[in-house]
Amino acid sequence: LKKTPPIIPGFLVGGTASGIKKSGAKDMALIFCPHGATAAGVFTTNQVKSPAVLLSRARLARGRAYAILANSGCANTFTGEAGMRDAREITRQAAAAVGVREGGVLASSTGVIGARLPLARMSQAIPGLVASLRGTGWVDAAEAIMTTDTRPKIAFRRARLAEGDVRVVGIAKGAGMIEPHMATLLVYLATNAAVGAPFLRRVLRKACDESFNRVTIDGCMSTSDTAVILASGMECRARLAPESPSGKRFARMVEEICFDLAEAIVGDGEGVTKRVWIRVRGARTDREARLAAYAVGNSPLVKTALRGEDPNWGRIVQALGASPGRIRPERLGIRFGKHAIVRRGRWLGASSEEAARRVMRGDAYEIGLDLGAGPGKAEVLTGDLTEEYVRINAFYRS
Amino acid sequence: LKKTPPIIPGFLVGGTASGIKKSGAKDMALIFCPHGATAAGVFTTNQVKSPAVLLSRARLARGRAYAILANSGCANTFTGEAGMRDAREITRQAAAAVGVREGGVLASSTGVIGARLPLARMSQAIPGLVASLRGTGWVDAAEAIMTTDTRPKIAFRRARLAEGDVRVVGIAKGAGMIEPHMATLLVYLATNAAVGAPFLRRVLRKACDESFNRVTIDGCMSTSDTAVILASGMECRARLAPESPSGKRFARMVEEICFDLAEAIVGDGEGVTKRVWIRVRGARTDREARLAAYAVGNSPLVKTALRGEDPNWGRIVQALGASPGRIRPERLGIRFGKHAIVRRGRWLGASSEEAARRVMRGDAYEIGLDLGAGPGKAEVLTGDLTEEYVRINAFYRS
Repeated sequence: LKKTPPIIPGFLVGGTASGIKKSGAKDMALIFCPHGATAAGVFTTNQVKSPAVLLSRARLARGRAYAILANSGCANTFTGEAGMRDAREITRQAAAAVGVREGGVLASSTGVIGARLPLARMSQAIPGLVASLRGTGWVDAAEAIMTTDTRPKIAFRRARLAEGDVRVVGIAKGAGMIEPHMATLLVYLATNAAVGAPFLRRVLRKACDESFNRVTIDGCMSTSDTAVILASGMECRARLAPESPSGKRFARMVEEICFDLAEAIVGDGEGVTKRVWIRVRGARTDREARLAAYAVGNSPLVKTALRGEDPNWGRIVQALGASPGRIRPERLGIRFGKHAIVRRGRWLGASSEEAARRVMRGDAYEIGLDLGAGPGKAEVLTGDLTEEYVRINAFYRS
Repeated sequence: LKKTPPIIPGFLVGGTASGIKKSGAKDMALIFCPHGATAAGVFTTNQVKSPAVLLSRARLARGRAYAILANSGCANTFTGEAGMRDAREITRQAAAAVGVREGGVLASSTGVIGARLPLARMSQAIPGLVASLRGTGWVDAAEAIMTTDTRPKIAFRRARLAEGDVRVVGIAKGAGMIEPHMATLLVYLATNAAVGAPFLRRVLRKACDESFNRVTIDGCMSTSDTAVILASGMECRARLAPESPSGKRFARMVEEICFDLAEAIVGDGEGVTKRVWIRVRGARTDREARLAAYAVGNSPLVKTALRGEDPNWGRIVQALGASPGRIRPERLGIRFGKHAIVRRGRWLGASSEEAARRVMRGDAYEIGLDLGAGPGKAEVLTGDLTEEYVRINAFYRS
């Protein structure tokens, strides 16, 4: 992932350490568009939503925003009405510091659930955060939203279109193993393209479906998951029309960035040493393919086999058989990379496993599954389950 | 669990090492009722079923059986028609060795999927297996069905009823963490009670629902899961009537044995150091309570927190919120043992967590959850997720 901070016309970005994190690492980020941006967001479907999520969702109703204020180290979730007051108050202060209306500031908080925001510290840090704003501040912001991430995640695309020199940048944080119940995902995208709010919403929704929603199940997100895109329209001659070649190109850029970020998130998942695409075909429907892909990609027995570089395809068969997605065992196919282990329901013998074992020594590969029951397809990116994952999560709060 | 081998009138039991397991440990068990027994079974709902499961299910249609032949070390699953021929052949040989009809022998195979039964070795071992038969052989049989279990699991109940001195014994093996996709469960029960087949089926089904189905999700079982009960009717004066006090007492004995075995299985789960009951109330329905209990009990983030003895209730909130079971956050209650951490949607502060932390130092305790949304209740037994679990499963086949 590109670490060179790109400049997106119309945006100033910064990050600072306010002391929310005991480590002294950066923990507050600000993305600021002084002239205001078209804005769209996608939020968690968890029944428990953080005040920041509720606030941002409401403030995005008009499709405009000036800034995103994000903090790590404290999720400000399950903190009752006081938590909502805190979220309002800190965005009010940030809005005042940059001179925009309070309702123009979106917010995210990620970290431990149940603890209230340390408002005094955060207030004190706002002047420094504003002072840190600059066009090249994306790495600082990406660092400031990290929790157990080991590195900042940034992706960038650029295209010279008839409408202008369009740039799109994205930063993200992941956590856990990006599985159901496990991930808090924050994604912020910014572009200088001129884009109408309805189109921007469609582009973001589709990009999330093609990327983050392949690594985490819909409806099983954390209390704080947020993806927001801001479009400044700066240095662009004309608005991107949804169905135009430029509009499609822009949508693809956003998708690619989200895809890059999703891959980076899995690769930097807690304790993850392998990135593995589970590609399913032959399901009765795409939905059943998806269920089957998740059944395999989420199976602790499969994930530990990935860890052990063991082509234990029996565990894949077991996970598929237990999934609601229909399979035809006598037609089942299983391959690791290009090497088939099971074809038309028959195991190809020990030598096929040796080839698979070599594939599994790599840190990124795919497992192809043919369910033999229809035309449905899906793919899911997963990682291995390691001792390190357990250690990180057993002792995370200590 | 009682290790003293009880005698069940009418049954001879044995176990031997045939060499399926490279370690030389016992790997074949035989439970034999020379006069024939009333029989009932419950089997996996996995789409892929082992030949042994298909064979046993078909042979139980008449509600009678003479013997159960079980092996560990090889699941004989996904072995095609050859696997079915092997299963038939080995039961035919066992039937011949004890002098009963082939269709009177049930079978189970557990272990690695995909490998065929080593028929030659198993055939050679049958005379020794038959020679090992005796009334007190339950521990041998329990040992012979172990895979990654560290100890045999046996439970026993006895009641002097009007109909006779009724004894019930159960042996079981578990594996994995007894979660969806993870467990292969074998359970064999034997009793000298005289019981009709329809009643026996009902008793077994209900006992499984109240025990094993609280530690593994219906529809997500392994390819070999099997629970079978045989009733010899020996030394009993009369048949147990379903609705009689004796019938009810018998049903309760079977339930208690299954419950004991389920607890033993979780306690001996791979790498498990804690047994934790997740007791949910206040769901809209029992079904939603069950979904919520599983969402918490299966969450890797919760399970690693159990490992770390960390009352990280935020992860419980997150798992509940992501579950399809409706919750009312403002009424939510969370307690560890007797100690509440969250009451009516409010965190009770750091001191409440200290009390919870003390509870979590124990190796068996309960987490109580009140969803605040209705009268639904459910409970699920889970264990912690440890580094040892990952090690066992990453390198299981090696």
